[in-house]
This record gives sequence, structure tokens and C-alpha cells, in this order.
Amino acid sequence: MPVPQQRVQSSERALANGHPGCVVWITGLSGSGKSTISTALERQLFAAGRQVYVLDGDILRHGLNQDLGFSPEARKENIRRAAQVAALLADAGLICIGAFISPYRSDRDLARSLVPPGRFIEVYLDVPVTVCEGRDPKGLYAKARAGLIPNFTGISAPYEAPLRPELDLKTNQLSVDQCVAAIVSKLETLPGA
Amino acid sequence: MPVPQQRVQSSERALANGHPGCVVWITGLSGSGKSTISTALERQLFAAGRQVYVLDGDILRHGLNQDLGFSPEARKENIRRAAQVAALLADAGLICIGAFISPYRSDRDLARSLVPPGRFIEVYLDVPVTVCEGRDPKGLYAKARAGLIPNFTGISAPYEAPLRPELDLKTNQLSVDQCVAAIVSKLETLPGA
Repeated sequence: MPVPQQRVQSSERALANGHPGCVVWITGLSGSGKSTISTALERQLFAAGRQVYVLDGDILRHGLNQDLGFSPEARKENIRRAAQVAALLADAGLICIGAFISPYRSDRDLARSLVPPGRFIEVYLDVPVTVCEGRDPKGLYAKARAGLIPNFTGISAPYEAPLRPELDLKTNQLSVDQCVAAIVSKLETLPGA
Repeated sequence: MPVPQQRVQSSERALANGHPGCVVWITGLSGSGKSTISTALERQLFAAGRQVYVLDGDILRHGLNQDLGFSPEARKENIRRAAQVAALLADAGLICIGAFISPYRSDRDLARSLVPPGRFIEVYLDVPVTVCEGRDPKGLYAKARAGLIPNFTGISAPYEAPLRPELDLKTNQLSVDQCVAAIVSKLETLPGA
């Protein structure tokens, strides 16, 4: 009988790819710059030969999470699944960029708990709600103020700012390039990077 | 204002990795060889420099799908989520090996529908239930016969064999190496491979 083979380990993937799998979790209000920064970060890491993929709420809402609504329980489940998929992508060797409002600390802490120590970079896009509302790229704040969107984070539902994020980026004071550079620098300090 | 950047496309990932992302969906009864073949296939593709990852039911049941039981509805949801995650991994550029009993044609067809045409390889491990029961690596058939596991595929619940799988592998007549070689050959015929 041949000896059964073993699954490929994370350490082997890191060696082959030249970097460890990990999760970059970008949290912040609607309009804080999550999509813009995620996309620019993916583009830069990809150009540098990294394995990288962006997971965002809109993509998941059209697929994995299409059965979920917007009740508090459904939002929690939405983030739980996102966190599990992010951890799978990291285990598969990728730098998974998760871009989710994810307003609750407990949900973000769950996401952190699913990856090995040191492989989770919480990035807080730290912008006053007034700035986000001024940008309002999707017109959502206007709808929320008009009462058309209940439980809108920052207006009628809480956002629990991270207490000890790996990075705190004031996207109203920094350029997109500066934000991306800060995240890339942090990635280079990961164990095994 | 800088021009907003675009997400990295599948075609770019395929060029960088030297192969397209895709899903190899391995279906068959408990004991048909799904885990053994998946692991050996992952090992061989990884050694050849491919980006590859195995998703299996046991892993998902401990994470993403830990909220699901074993009712018919829960089993369907289990496979739906697995299929969505497999499609995400393929979109991220990986060869995702999905190893799931997945007894229903409609569920497997859903999994196929989530990836671009030609990027889904359905592999049927085609072994008589008597052979699987004789192997019974996890002792599940014995429990099912004793009435301890209701709705056990092949004993008390149906298995709908694929009608037109990309590969039909009789794992009781072929070695593991032969099965892996057949799948690798099929992967080399993918558009963009």
C-alpha cells in the first residue's frame, strides 16, 4: 500500500509563493475608501507577483450570502461567513483583502481568531462620518437621512471603532498611494514575509 | 483625480500563474476515494508549481458550514455554499479541488453554473456501493446499516450518478496515480491552460 499523502501545508505555500497567506481586514464607514484602497492594494500586490484577492460585501451578497437580509442577525452571519472565507483564502496561500464595514468589534475579533497569530492585519479607515457623508459615492447617506435605509451604520446604527488596529489610516488626510504603501509596509513585517 | 483602478481580472491571474483558475469537482459515495485522490492531486499539482487548494466537506463543516445540520435543506445549503466558495477560489486563480459526496445532480449543476464555461471538471468516482461499503474507512456504512445514521447516501438516501461527467473514474480498477494522471491530463485541455 502506498503511504497516504498529506495536504499541502501553509508553510509550503508560503515558501512557493514568496509570502505567507494572510488577511488584510479593512473596516470603516460607507464612503471611507474601502473599495478604492482595496482595489489599488490588490493591483499593486499583484504587480509585485503576490497572490492576492479582494473579498467585498457586494460580491458576497450576490453569491455566498445571497440568502441573507439586513437584520442584525443576518448582518452578523454575513460577516461570519466573510471571515470564514477570508481565512480559507489565507490558508490557500493568498493575501486576502477583506473590505467590509464590519461595524462590530466582536465580528472583527472573530475574523481575527480564524487565522494564525500574526496573520491578520486590521486596517481602520478612520474618517469622520461627516466626511463620508460629504463623499456619499453611492448616495446611501442621503437615503439614510431620508429614512429610506434603516440601521445605517454611522447614522442610525453604531460603528465600533477598532481599539488596537494594526493600522489606523485617516483617508481624508492621506492619498490612496500613501494608504496602500502603509499596508504594503505592514505586510512586509509579517512573520515569514 | 487619479483614475480609479480596476480589479485584477481572471485572465491576468491565468497569465501570471501559468494556468487558469478552475474547479475540479469530485463526486462519489463515501469511501469512493475522494479524499485520497484529492490529496494526491493537490500534492502533484503543487509540486508542478500550480496554485491549488482542496475544499472538502469535513473542513467546511467545522467552519463556514458549522451552523448547518444534516436535513435535506441543510445538505443542499452545504453544497450551495461549497460551490460558491469553489467559484471564488477559481476566480482568485486557483485550481480548486472540491471533494463532496454531492449526491444530487441539481446541486452539482449549480456548482458548474457558477464558473465560466469550460472551467468546471466534474469527476465521478464510479464505484459500486458494495465496494465502498467493503472499504468503509470511517465505519459509516456499519453505522448506517445499524440505523444509527439516517439518510445515508447509497444506503438509505439516493446518489444520482452524473450523466455526462468530464471524467468517470472506476477507482476500484485504477490506481490513485492513474486517477490523478487522468485529472491532470484533463486540466491540460482547459482553454487557457
